Amino acid sequence: MFNIKGIAASSGIAIAKAYRLENPELVIEKKAVSDAAAEIARLEDAIAKSHVELEAIRNHANAELGADKAAIFEAHLLVLNDPELVNPVKDKITSENVNAEFAMNEVAQMFVSMFESMDNEYMKERAADIRDVTKRVLAHILGVHFANPATISEEVVIIAEDLTPSDTAQLNRKYALGFTTDIGGRTSHSAIMARSLEIPAVVGTKEVTSKIENGVMVIVDGLDGEVIVDPTEDVIRQYEEKKAKFEAQKTEWAKLKNEPTVSKDGQHVELVANIGTPNDVEGVMNNGGEGVGLYRTEFLYMGRDNFPTEEEQFEAYKAVLEGLSGKPVVVRTLDIGGDKELSYLHLPKEMNPFLGYRAIRMCLDQQDIFRTQLRALLRASVYGDLKIMFPMIATLDEFRAAKAVLEEEKAKLVAEGTQVSDSIEVGMMVEIPASAVIADLFAKEVDFFSIGTNDLIQYTMAADRMNEQVSYLYQPYNPAILRLVKMVIDAANKEGKWAGMCGEMAGDELAIPLLLGLGLHEFSMSATSILPARTQIAKLSKVEMEELAAKALNMSTAEEVVELVKSI
Amino acid sequence: MFNIKGIAASSGIAIAKAYRLENPELVIEKKAVSDAAAEIARLEDAIAKSHVELEAIRNHANAELGADKAAIFEAHLLVLNDPELVNPVKDKITSENVNAEFAMNEVAQMFVSMFESMDNEYMKERAADIRDVTKRVLAHILGVHFANPATISEEVVIIAEDLTPSDTAQLNRKYALGFTTDIGGRTSHSAIMARSLEIPAVVGTKEVTSKIENGVMVIVDGLDGEVIVDPTEDVIRQYEEKKAKFEAQKTEWAKLKNEPTVSKDGQHVELVANIGTPNDVEGVMNNGGEGVGLYRTEFLYMGRDNFPTEEEQFEAYKAVLEGLSGKPVVVRTLDIGGDKELSYLHLPKEMNPFLGYRAIRMCLDQQDIFRTQLRALLRASVYGDLKIMFPMIATLDEFRAAKAVLEEEKAKLVAEGTQVSDSIEVGMMVEIPASAVIADLFAKEVDFFSIGTNDLIQYTMAADRMNEQVSYLYQPYNPAILRLVKMVIDAANKEGKWAGMCGEMAGDELAIPLLLGLGLHEFSMSATSILPARTQIAKLSKVEMEELAAKALNMSTAEEVVELVKSI
Repeated sequence: MFNIKGIAASSGIAIAKAYRLENPELVIEKKAVSDAAAEIARLEDAIAKSHVELEAIRNHANAELGADKAAIFEAHLLVLNDPELVNPVKDKITSENVNAEFAMNEVAQMFVSMFESMDNEYMKERAADIRDVTKRVLAHILGVHFANPATISEEVVIIAEDLTPSDTAQLNRKYALGFTTDIGGRTSHSAIMARSLEIPAVVGTKEVTSKIENGVMVIVDGLDGEVIVDPTEDVIRQYEEKKAKFEAQKTEWAKLKNEPTVSKDGQHVELVANIGTPNDVEGVMNNGGEGVGLYRTEFLYMGRDNFPTEEEQFEAYKAVLEGLSGKPVVVRTLDIGGDKELSYLHLPKEMNPFLGYRAIRMCLDQQDIFRTQLRALLRASVYGDLKIMFPMIATLDEFRAAKAVLEEEKAKLVAEGTQVSDSIEVGMMVEIPASAVIADLFAKEVDFFSIGTNDLIQYTMAADRMNEQVSYLYQPYNPAILRLVKMVIDAANKEGKWAGMCGEMAGDELAIPLLLGLGLHEFSMSATSILPARTQIAKLSKVEMEELAAKALNMSTAEEVVELVKSI
Repeated sequence: MFNIKGIAASSGIAIAKAYRLENPELVIEKKAVSDAAAEIARLEDAIAKSHVELEAIRNHANAELGADKAAIFEAHLLVLNDPELVNPVKDKITSENVNAEFAMNEVAQMFVSMFESMDNEYMKERAADIRDVTKRVLAHILGVHFANPATISEEVVIIAEDLTPSDTAQLNRKYALGFTTDIGGRTSHSAIMARSLEIPAVVGTKEVTSKIENGVMVIVDGLDGEVIVDPTEDVIRQYEEKKAKFEAQKTEWAKLKNEPTVSKDGQHVELVANIGTPNDVEGVMNNGGEGVGLYRTEFLYMGRDNFPTEEEQFEAYKAVLEGLSGKPVVVRTLDIGGDKELSYLHLPKEMNPFLGYRAIRMCLDQQDIFRTQLRALLRASVYGDLKIMFPMIATLDEFRAAKAVLEEEKAKLVAEGTQVSDSIEVGMMVEIPASAVIADLFAKEVDFFSIGTNDLIQYTMAADRMNEQVSYLYQPYNPAILRLVKMVIDAANKEGKWAGMCGEMAGDELAIPLLLGLGLHEFSMSATSILPARTQIAKLSKVEMEELAAKALNMSTAEEVVELVKSI
């Protein structure tokens, strides 16, 4: 028996025999060919077969996982038929008289390394898409058959170097009880799909494929990010208990699905969800969300060649508002820049993009983009309870300018005879230290605050949260962060406004007691965290948590705060 | 008459005829040569002549400008004799059978573009050095004579595209009354030299060489960054008055040289200087500095191939402490990383270097570098009033860890029988928002604070101060910044410690009334700002400034604060 550590990517426990999902190595040899037309025919045949397969997978994913998860296969189909990829392959075959697989591989490699070299998560994902599609086409050219996880017919734990989106989408929940991979992180495609499928997963282990043989007993602990190989009977029993406990907990959580969130001493707070697309609305409702605390509109702008039209945006916003059936929806206006780029919006290369031209800074400078979004939002406002917030507000001047643009567009729409809700709250993200420090001044002018802890922490500590060498400084429990959060909540209370939080901290089990104690009104988190959080809050006394928070504010270090919270 | 706007690089007014400092264009043709040895001899001859010239310029600069300014010519001599530059030129001549000037130019261009492409001011300066040296060598190979500013024999204003360090060093203050250039900024070599020589200068005008002819009357207004070409008699009279007023002000400032800094109502504050090398000590004393508030030790590590030894550092620290004759010297330990790189310290490429692995973060991780510096400081401590501060402290853990390393090295030295002062104060920079917010917790453990506003502002506003697109957010007068400054000063007062400031804000005429009112104890600025600041403070009542500051803390925007200060 031995353990392998990894990243907990999807919660739950799976206990079953190992099934190594291995694909034959594709051997690409360069061959001189005399009949280029025949090679092009081989290429086109392989693309056609891949097309049929991908459509089948897309349809399967659509039915099993929902449209948002199926969208990735739409992207794959686009890659497969992209003339920018296919034409250079044909050119290479003709001009160099080489075989189809060699030409395909060379051209694809070139695109993959180009996208991978970009300092941008989104572009890196594009590289993964191209790699996935290319492998499929090459297999067809070479007549090689890949392992198809859909054919698995007994209970197993999948062991793989990585799972492509197509692998994951084909997993049958009945037999694939869990999986573990060498590579990947919490936000890789396979991890996101695992959470949708509710399959326990541990990723990024670096070594499961080199250490685990087919058929050996394996435990995947997606709660603690651990893989136990060849466990003893005793250990299996322990994990069966852990699994039962987790299942019981899930049942307990489910009971609170249609209940409000109330502390032990009867104080109500709102638990709402962070979403990215209209497809996420179903998850919010299924998990008992009391609304949407952060609708990230960037996804509307990504993975395309030009800006979404006002009409496209209107449809998306309307769909979300209608889907929430009158529950509040806080929409964040476009937050592009920093680590998020758009291929069709040419932003300057910056030395420190996190401290650069992004979000409201860009929107106030390029107002046509901003105004289109605001018009779409205003038009959609009659379909539900819309609240609008601006990201990266640092100064009152910026908030006033953004609000003025909104008012202008509203007046224009009204003048045109378009219906617009007259109860739209307008607020701001607090994610820049300056705006927390003068929250009292902002509170006189905004309708609400939403604290974005991911950015607030990185700026307050001056540490890039993506940079491993300074990741020890990403300290949500640092008393400096807690004090800034308190300043924002107190400022809101004083002016009769409300304060929410939509960073990762809001859904964090260790942070929730402190945030309840500090008086946070609204907690926005991933939908799957809502029921656990509601259960946790039901067991906490707000008055006691106020005492806890007061103590935490005067502790010297983040570690001491963590100790304090763990002691309750 | 017309005006040209530029950057005020050195204060004062110069009124004189224009003298265009033009150098003949160097025409480099590629020629095939049969006798490579003869070409190498031409190259070596040109290098030898350049060497003689550069030594003369270096000696002249040393006598006229001081050793620190002469250091640049040491760097030029190093470039001139650098085998990494010269050998590839010789190789090119031999292997390609080309002429010396062509080979020299090609190799130099390659190095220049390499250094220029680096996102780093220091490396870009290296490119300028190579360009300067190469031009000199090429002129000798080609037998072309360059304009020599040392031969000017009447009062003029120099008009040039740019002034190389060697041009500037050769200017005769008696005749070169001022200068103006197309390119350059406040921190370019020519600007720094102009300030040392006290020659008025306006740089970065983009167009003086295309708009100003030889012999036309010109006014260089180094106070407001303006060049007036062909002024009317009236305008000349106005500027003569402005000049006289400036000279009178300088005389008034000089009177306070040996006086303490005291407000109108008798409150003393300390005005101290920021320095980079022991050569700057003379300027501190000449400008009436009450000590050194920031000794940036990075320069000791720059422009070389390896780390400075403990002995080299000891000599530098000792020289500064002795030069200050018992006045306090606050030394900041190594602040490398961010935009400051060392060729021999291989730091990872970071996406957001300002939020990365730098300063104390690097020093606590690579302790051998840190310990060497601390030992040198401790050994030097007996030669004056040494205070040590750590940069980029974000958490109490970091401060405690850094101080523990210092204590360890102190104990070792004492055990070895080395004398170490037992009254060294140990403090920290406050330049990260987190440390300002919990300054009360830090104040219990540090001896003093020094607020680094340049970084504090950029992190608090989440805006890279080098990025022009967000430069509007670099707001020293934003009430959020003033509140953080207040938190630090109040925290120090409560524990009987002192708080200083060593960012650019401390020497800013508009900020001084606010900082006095907030109760700042020590203002550290460039040496030349000390006497103007002392004069200003002598006219301000601290009690009145306290009222002013209290008002400013509750204003909504930086603009309102500026209006308020201007109203006094």
